[in-house]
Amino acid sequence: MSDTDIKSYMQSIGREARAASRLVAKAETADKNKALTAMAEAIDRDTKTLLAANAKDLEHARTKGLEAAMIDRLALSQKSIANMAEGLQQIAALADPIGEITGLSYRPSGIQVGKMRVPLGVIGIIYEARPNVTADAAGLCLKAGNAAILRGGSEAIHSNQAIAKCVREGLVAAGLPESAIQVIETTDRAAVGELITMQKYVDVIVPRGGKGLIERISNEACVPVIKHLDGVCHVYIDDQADFDKAIRIADNAKTQRYGTCNTMETLLVHTEIARTILPVLGKIYLEKGVELRGDEAARAMITPMNPATEEDWSTEYLAPILSIRIVDNLDQAIEHINRYGSQHTDAIITENYTRARRFLREVDSSSVMVNTTTRFADGFEYGLGAEIGISTDKIHARGPVGLEGLTSQKYIVLGDGQIRQ
Amino acid sequence: MSDTDIKSYMQSIGREARAASRLVAKAETADKNKALTAMAEAIDRDTKTLLAANAKDLEHARTKGLEAAMIDRLALSQKSIANMAEGLQQIAALADPIGEITGLSYRPSGIQVGKMRVPLGVIGIIYEARPNVTADAAGLCLKAGNAAILRGGSEAIHSNQAIAKCVREGLVAAGLPESAIQVIETTDRAAVGELITMQKYVDVIVPRGGKGLIERISNEACVPVIKHLDGVCHVYIDDQADFDKAIRIADNAKTQRYGTCNTMETLLVHTEIARTILPVLGKIYLEKGVELRGDEAARAMITPMNPATEEDWSTEYLAPILSIRIVDNLDQAIEHINRYGSQHTDAIITENYTRARRFLREVDSSSVMVNTTTRFADGFEYGLGAEIGISTDKIHARGPVGLEGLTSQKYIVLGDGQIRQ
Repeated sequence: MSDTDIKSYMQSIGREARAASRLVAKAETADKNKALTAMAEAIDRDTKTLLAANAKDLEHARTKGLEAAMIDRLALSQKSIANMAEGLQQIAALADPIGEITGLSYRPSGIQVGKMRVPLGVIGIIYEARPNVTADAAGLCLKAGNAAILRGGSEAIHSNQAIAKCVREGLVAAGLPESAIQVIETTDRAAVGELITMQKYVDVIVPRGGKGLIERISNEACVPVIKHLDGVCHVYIDDQADFDKAIRIADNAKTQRYGTCNTMETLLVHTEIARTILPVLGKIYLEKGVELRGDEAARAMITPMNPATEEDWSTEYLAPILSIRIVDNLDQAIEHINRYGSQHTDAIITENYTRARRFLREVDSSSVMVNTTTRFADGFEYGLGAEIGISTDKIHARGPVGLEGLTSQKYIVLGDGQIRQ
Repeated sequence: MSDTDIKSYMQSIGREARAASRLVAKAETADKNKALTAMAEAIDRDTKTLLAANAKDLEHARTKGLEAAMIDRLALSQKSIANMAEGLQQIAALADPIGEITGLSYRPSGIQVGKMRVPLGVIGIIYEARPNVTADAAGLCLKAGNAAILRGGSEAIHSNQAIAKCVREGLVAAGLPESAIQVIETTDRAAVGELITMQKYVDVIVPRGGKGLIERISNEACVPVIKHLDGVCHVYIDDQADFDKAIRIADNAKTQRYGTCNTMETLLVHTEIARTILPVLGKIYLEKGVELRGDEAARAMITPMNPATEEDWSTEYLAPILSIRIVDNLDQAIEHINRYGSQHTDAIITENYTRARRFLREVDSSSVMVNTTTRFADGFEYGLGAEIGISTDKIHARGPVGLEGLTSQKYIVLGDGQIRQ
């Protein structure tokens, strides 16, 4: 397609999404759930078709020589398809957030003022290889009363189209407009440029993928973006930490999974406890094959440990690498986190009441924890039921974003003829 | 200043604001209140100095031939200065939103998850002639634990600097950093361009002023913007409306004040009640000097009434002009509002339960009302205590924005050594 064609294609997608969003916003809970269940059933039924479409994408990816990690994210299996369907069933089982009225109270003028939870409208999701995002995002957006425009990676186009067919079938089965969830059919990059600047038709953009993609989108978007760039998460072991808890948590936060955004990347240790705890921790990490990089004081306590550079402190490794720094006190720990961190998730290990309270208040991150692992920063673990992503922004939504993050609240005012004097 | 100088001046303002924001975020409630009270006292004490500074601005404005409305907004008086001080005292009396913890509940893993209300960080306020915004915005931002960078209109520069001096004095009296509230000293427009793109130092921009200013800022900003463009507010009189309430409200919504954003600009009337109610309402409006513009059906019922053009339906008059349209039913009224309105404030007058419920749910505006006047859409009337503006955005804050709109929520997680399996 030419750029003009793409513009008019995207404008038409946007117009339809806006029109559909009005209908989805007022759809009954039962109809939204019916659509979600029908989508799940269609996905289950179409397992073979989905695998065949995915095989095409995989073949193409191998021909193009895409890296193994990318191919891994792209690949569907019977199990991952079943999980996709199960995810939609779980979203159907969540409470409907839309229409909830809170805080209705009378004002001196006699009017009653409260807030009603409402959909955002049209949500644009831009993601990379993972085809399961198509089903997850469609489900969450629909349950929260929104229309969605989905733009998956070009490498997953056949898989995404096959999933999109099941999604549309579910919408139709419940009498909802097909255009409530649209998957962009062109792989042209210009389509993304249109999507993130169609303020008239799109209310918010949620980019999911690597830091490069997300930075580019948030720099170029005119539409508000809910995003997280990276997760440089810290655990700070205070000198009043319980030794066993500190070992257990510092181990889990780094080694339970290496490639997730809530994995610890820097360990901060109070100088008073470092001499006793670091050798024990160092042994655990080294045995698990974690490369250690530290400041001078830390390197005096564990061997082998490479020197950490200034750059290390703000690096999200997503790999079995850990940077370690010895600090003099809580102030230094908080200062380090607020300076080098990415405002994602940070934890203190301490038995000291006042320090726990200070850490909770003064660390400016989307999740702040006491005596537990950063790995818990997750929509399911927090009880949101499902998440569309984790936000490190401060505006609108911070931390794991579930159904509620895809909604807004309007004021409602009930009167009996009151006028303003 | 050259553009390079402005850039480095603004960067230094930003850096200082960011540093101050960390201190203000953890400031005790008593200290914030002490600063607010000291600001109020300094403003009261400096009344003469403020009037003298304002006189300079007024003289300059007259020499430059600024329009009367602008000069009116610019002018300070003993009374308006006393109101400014009183406003700061009122903000001191409001509850501190920061640190409030909500929803702490246990998860199956044993961790306890909740949310803590936290400041946004650094807020940039860009406004036009009104010097009182300097004090109001400073007070609200500080109470919500934020640092602020204020950029008033060049025509009010002397007044704003004089108020800024009182604000700084208040901060110092409470031991808070002076740079928590900075008023930009240059009137160069390039400073605004810097302010709205310093993502590193500014968390949100709140523009206050005419539609032109706000459109320009939201198009050029990289930093998130909380804004309202205009208020095209509607009252819909249903055929099941109570006649007296309908008259009272439709009168009040238009004529109580003409120049405010929550004033009704279009009246929609159900065809069944139009013949009886429009002649009565028309008489009231015409006696008060309101120019009426209507569709053909409405014009058959009131004389004189000019024909309304397509453009009228989406115009914010801010003047004694009202457009009137006859609709066949509730659906047509809702469709008209969602199509031509500005998602500000809309009201239905009806005694019908189901229609009231439908209107509340389906009208996509920041305030939706039943049987009361749009003029109530206001932070004070809603009980927020004070407002920094009214947002017609959907992201983050909708409707009147008070202290809470200047805050965010982070997750807090409390554990006893739990790790993820």
